Amino acid sequence: MNSHPLRQIIEACDRAISARDFDALMAYYAPDAALVVRPDLVVTGQAAIRKAFTAISDYFQDQLVVEQGELQVIEGADNALVIMETVLHYPDDAGGTVTATRRATYVFQRQSDGRWLCAIDNSYGTALLDG
Amino acid sequence: MNSHPLRQIIEACDRAISARDFDALMAYYAPDAALVVRPDLVVTGQAAIRKAFTAISDYFQDQLVVEQGELQVIEGADNALVIMETVLHYPDDAGGTVTATRRATYVFQRQSDGRWLCAIDNSYGTALLDG
Repeated sequence: MNSHPLRQIIEACDRAISARDFDALMAYYAPDAALVVRPDLVVTGQAAIRKAFTAISDYFQDQLVVEQGELQVIEGADNALVIMETVLHYPDDAGGTVTATRRATYVFQRQSDGRWLCAIDNSYGTALLDG
Repeated sequence: MNSHPLRQIIEACDRAISARDFDALMAYYAPDAALVVRPDLVVTGQAAIRKAFTAISDYFQDQLVVEQGELQVIEGADNALVIMETVLHYPDDAGGTVTATRRATYVFQRQSDGRWLCAIDNSYGTALLDG
């Protein structure tokens, strides 16, 4: 499971974000995909998703480090539900480093040519219900 | 959000299970949908899903009561990721009642005629990573 092709795709997305290569990143999203930016803010469409990732990247000034952990993928009806442990490291105001672990949920769609595109990117997982 | 059409569909599925009306239940699943029966067992296709629900229903002998709680739906690229609090009540061996709360994750696909069909039914949510 940890060698599922979607792991490579998600890791390629992380590298694209780190490199601020938003063209490369957007190639993995469906044109009308949705991104949960914060629990109270969902944006839809590549233009809005690109803008959100750019703002997140600017905010963290390249100091956000993302590590992907355990992965589960459930495939059904040409869709895949990905459940993935994600560890985030970023600086706090006091000069230290915050480490936060999330369980993300992503929905990918298999295209007719075999490529997987992200339809829904919800890095908050079921914690959305905490809000 | 709690009045999203998918809430009505999920509640109709619960009623169909309670009534052992598996024909009605299967009308809400894509032909090649996937069901997480247990964290270590995923079945695919309507015939296998129907068999799993029949076995679950037989096991609990109509003593499983399901209550749906808070709901979040994120729609992208004609898919919907549903995150739902589910409370289960069932008898234990000592004559008491067990209450278990889960945060389920479901993927539904919008069909060209507007109907929603379940593609992936994972009542374990991100707890799949605990296994």
